[in-house]
Order: sequence, then structure tokens, then C-alpha cells
Amino acid sequence: MSQYIFGVDIGGTTVKLGFFDAEGNLLEKWEILTRKEESGSKILPDVAESIKNKMAEKQLISADILGIGVGAPGPIDSDGVVHRAVNLGWGTFSIKETLEGLLHIPVMAGNDANVAALGEMWKGGGQGSTDLVVVTLGTGVGGGIIIGGKVLTGADGAGGEIGHIHVQDGEEECCGCGNKGCLEQYASATGIKRLAVKKMRESNKDSVLRQGEVSAKAVFNGVKSKDELAMEVAAEFGKYLGEGLAVIASVINPETIVIGGGVSKAGEVLFDYIKPSYEKNVFHANRNVKFALATLGNDAGIYGAAKLIADIVMPNIK
Amino acid sequence: MSQYIFGVDIGGTTVKLGFFDAEGNLLEKWEILTRKEESGSKILPDVAESIKNKMAEKQLISADILGIGVGAPGPIDSDGVVHRAVNLGWGTFSIKETLEGLLHIPVMAGNDANVAALGEMWKGGGQGSTDLVVVTLGTGVGGGIIIGGKVLTGADGAGGEIGHIHVQDGEEECCGCGNKGCLEQYASATGIKRLAVKKMRESNKDSVLRQGEVSAKAVFNGVKSKDELAMEVAAEFGKYLGEGLAVIASVINPETIVIGGGVSKAGEVLFDYIKPSYEKNVFHANRNVKFALATLGNDAGIYGAAKLIADIVMPNIK
Repeated sequence: MSQYIFGVDIGGTTVKLGFFDAEGNLLEKWEILTRKEESGSKILPDVAESIKNKMAEKQLISADILGIGVGAPGPIDSDGVVHRAVNLGWGTFSIKETLEGLLHIPVMAGNDANVAALGEMWKGGGQGSTDLVVVTLGTGVGGGIIIGGKVLTGADGAGGEIGHIHVQDGEEECCGCGNKGCLEQYASATGIKRLAVKKMRESNKDSVLRQGEVSAKAVFNGVKSKDELAMEVAAEFGKYLGEGLAVIASVINPETIVIGGGVSKAGEVLFDYIKPSYEKNVFHANRNVKFALATLGNDAGIYGAAKLIADIVMPNIK
Repeated sequence: MSQYIFGVDIGGTTVKLGFFDAEGNLLEKWEILTRKEESGSKILPDVAESIKNKMAEKQLISADILGIGVGAPGPIDSDGVVHRAVNLGWGTFSIKETLEGLLHIPVMAGNDANVAALGEMWKGGGQGSTDLVVVTLGTGVGGGIIIGGKVLTGADGAGGEIGHIHVQDGEEECCGCGNKGCLEQYASATGIKRLAVKKMRESNKDSVLRQGEVSAKAVFNGVKSKDELAMEVAAEFGKYLGEGLAVIASVINPETIVIGGGVSKAGEVLFDYIKPSYEKNVFHANRNVKFALATLGNDAGIYGAAKLIADIVMPNIK
């Protein structure tokens, strides 16, 4: 009898669902809308309905399903309890118990960024390592820490908040979190754009950045065409991200650092800017860490969610 | 039949040994000299001899001993293999296999700072927490990270190198590790003395610090007598340590931060200087972390070493 896993990645706009075999091969994926009305109370019933439909379509019964893994934005503890997910309108309740009540299938849940990190370890850029830092450079900077193949959840489910480590004393603008000088202010797509705008104001240099919409993508395109101003912005981005990763690595001693998120589409050139600052600041035992690009893109979340289930079923398969 | 555990803490000058019951009560402790000659090859045979003698004295046989836990200075992986311990003259070899070969009793080994952290969790200032950061402010700054009751060893046994996280960009002097701006340069006893000497040169203020030997102890004695210069030094110490701990907490999300080592003898006053900077820089989810002083002093290492054994025998007892 073949057995299957569902991986569910709940985002603020859509819920991504994946149908996996027990080895973690993605057989099918689809999306449904995230209905946030009524404090997000429709989200899990919608997920349950969608899974029921898929099971009916495939003529599967509960016994065919090993479990359902769920990633969602917010602190989620190791018992599957979410402690407020502002983006979804959620308060504090057990995702695990709610969804198990609806489907009578085992459920595991975790923070979306942490779960995506697990996905990259299992089937993405971090394959082969069990101790890794996955940093996601998107609108914000998210991340996940994996220790011995398991997500570092932390005491309150807030482990791996890489974006809000302090990397700069002199910052005058506030980060979204209320602090000043957070990594996110320099290394997210938004942060890179901010650095570029600042640099363009302070400098008289001609630059391709002055010819269109300023964005992280434009900065790294500029870098590839050897645009000086773009390279200065990239250097500043790399200085802070390298410093931040060096601190994390000195504490965690990872085998691999995986860089993902929209900004990572710039490719290997990122490492040219991150590594010098990383190597300058890291404790020597961590100087030879592997750097890798994330490879799963938006599917990292459903892969990682499926891995939450694979871990309980076959705890020794990494 | 009662059963016992030996906890062994190997230092550069002496080896501390503890004789524990299975619940972790320290029944007896003693020390032997660390003989570093011949690449430290006599150290483990000396430890074995000392344990044999104690067993003979107590009329115990191998079956009465649950195991021997060992802490030693250097990166030690989860298989008990040390990867160079410069202070002891050791290269790379298995502490576990060597000592098991000599005594035919199960052995577990770990890095001394990490093991001491485990001791503070079990029987010291961190009791009741399973996710904690223990920072030891001595000649250097050491530490250990405990996640879910287990030491974070890291991919190469170099996890928890808190002393070498980068906290200051403008530093001109080198840290012992070769980098510049490491936490150890500001928060160790040596670092505090360095800050005090610098402050005394730069300022014309009268101070009790000018009346005797400058030391971390003198600084915190000065703080207690409201000496302005001493308070300025303490503020600088607290700024960097608070920032460093904030970064670690944002990544790890601990329940408790324990401060130990010689500097911690200054007592609760330390927190007055650490907390403002910590709270300013940490991700909000970690703002309510518990701060505690270490309580085991130099015995933390033998307690933690014993805990390595207690963990394999009774994995559910925290």
C-alpha cells in the first residue's frame, strides 16, 4: 500500500498545497485563496476541504495518508500551537488539534520560515547537511536554523528571527519591528532598495540605477554590468549580511548557509559580496562553511511541511 | 543497588573530578594535576587511575558506575572525538574510546564550556529551563547554548563560541582569535580591564580606579560605590554584552540567559548594565527572557559532565 503526505504552506494571500509520496517526491501541487475574514477562522476548514477533495479524486482513505504538515506565518511551538499570526488574523490556538479534528489524520505544524528552511535541507540547496542556516531575502529577511536535522523552534516558537539581529549601531531609521539597525534594513529587497536610494542621493556618479525603477533586482543587474554605484550598494549589503551571518555561524557552527528568497535570484554573485565580510568577522572554526543558493523557490514551504511528517514516520531518514 | 556517575572537568592546570549519585547529587570532589607533557598523553590514563582508586576506596565495581562524563577545552563532536585541544597538547582522537578502553565503563565527552552550561541548566542558575544561553565571563568569554535540554555542539564541535561574535566595527586592537571587535574584547575580565585603562587615559575624572590595581573586580566595586568613571566602564561593558546577547537571543529564542565566570561575582548589578542594551536591541519576542547568575562556580563542569551520562541513562529527566 502506497502512502502519501500533504504539505501545506499558509500565506497571507494564498495557501499552497503539495501532495507527496513518502519519499518526499512532489506528485502534485495547487493553491487556494487564503480567506482572512472572521479572524481567519475559515482558513483551516478550507484547507481540510481541499485535502478531502484531493483524496476523493485520488480515491484515497485516511489510512493512505501518513500525515499533513503545515507551515504558517507566526510563532508556532513544538506542540503545533500558534501564538498570534497577525497576517492571518489568528490568535492563539492549536493548528494541530484543529486540523486533526477536521480530518482525523495526524498533523504537525511549524513557523513558515522555519519549515521552508527544512524543505531546503531535505530537497533543496542544503541537501546533505543537517546543521544549517537558511536565510530568506525577500520583502523582509526571514530564516530558519536547523540543528541535527531539526528546526530550532526556540522557547516561544520565535527561533531563527535572523532578520532582526542588530548589525548597525548608527542607524537612524526604524525597522518594521521597532528597533534600529536590524539586518532586514540592509539585506532584504526593501533594504537594498533603501541603500540604493541613499547612495544615489549622496553620490554624483552616473549609474544605470538612475535610469529606471530602483530595486534589489536593478542593483544586482547593475553589478553584473560593472556599474560602480550598484557595486557600492552591493558591497554595503554584503558587509551587513556577512557580519550577521558570521555572528550566527559563530554561535551555531553550521555546515551550510543557504541563501533564498527573491534577492537570491541574483545568483552566485551574491557570495562575492557576502563572503569577504563573513570571513573577516567569523570565528575561525566556521571560516570554511559551505554557501549555497536555495533551489526550491516558493515550493520550499510545502516540501518542509511534508518533512515535518516524514520526520515522525521515519525519524532516521534525513 | 545504588549507581553512580563520575564527572570529569579537564583544565589546563588541574583536572576536577566529581563522584555523583544517579540523581546528580555531588557526593565527593577532588582534583589531580593536568600532566601536559608528551602531548598530553598522560592525562586520560591519570584520570582513569584516579577513578580506579576512588572505586577501590568505595568498594565499587564497573557495574555500579553508570558512566563517566568528560569536559575538555577544545572542539569535541557528539561522538566524543576532540579536534585539537591546544591547551592540553592534544591532537585529534576519541576521548570516549580512549577512556572506555582504559576503564570499560561508558564515556561521554563534550567541550568544557558547553558542558559547564549543561551543569548550570541541571543544578545551577538555569534550573527549570531547557532552552538557554550560558555565558562565562572569565579571562575570556566562553559559553554554551542549550536547546531542548541538549548542548548545541555544532557541525564541527565549535557551537556556542559566544566570545567571538562581532559586536564592534571600529575596533583597532586584535582579539586573541585574530579578528577585531569580538565580544571577548569588551566583556571578559581582561576586556573590562582594557576598557577601564582606556577610559582612565581619555578622562581627567578622579576615580577609585586610579588608586590600586585596575581589574574587572575593581570596576564593579567602583560601581557599587557610585564611582563615575567605573560606571562609565560598566556601561560600555553592558552595551556590548547586551548587544551580543540580543543577537544570540534573536536567533535562539532562549527562556533563560545565565551569566557566570569570575566577573559574575559582581552580582545582580551586572544586569543593570546589560539589560538596557539587551532590551533595546533584541527582537520583541525575546524581551522577557529571564536573566540569572550562575551558581555552581568551578563545579559547573563536573556537574555538566555527569549530566552527559544522566541524559543517556534517563533521557527524560531534565
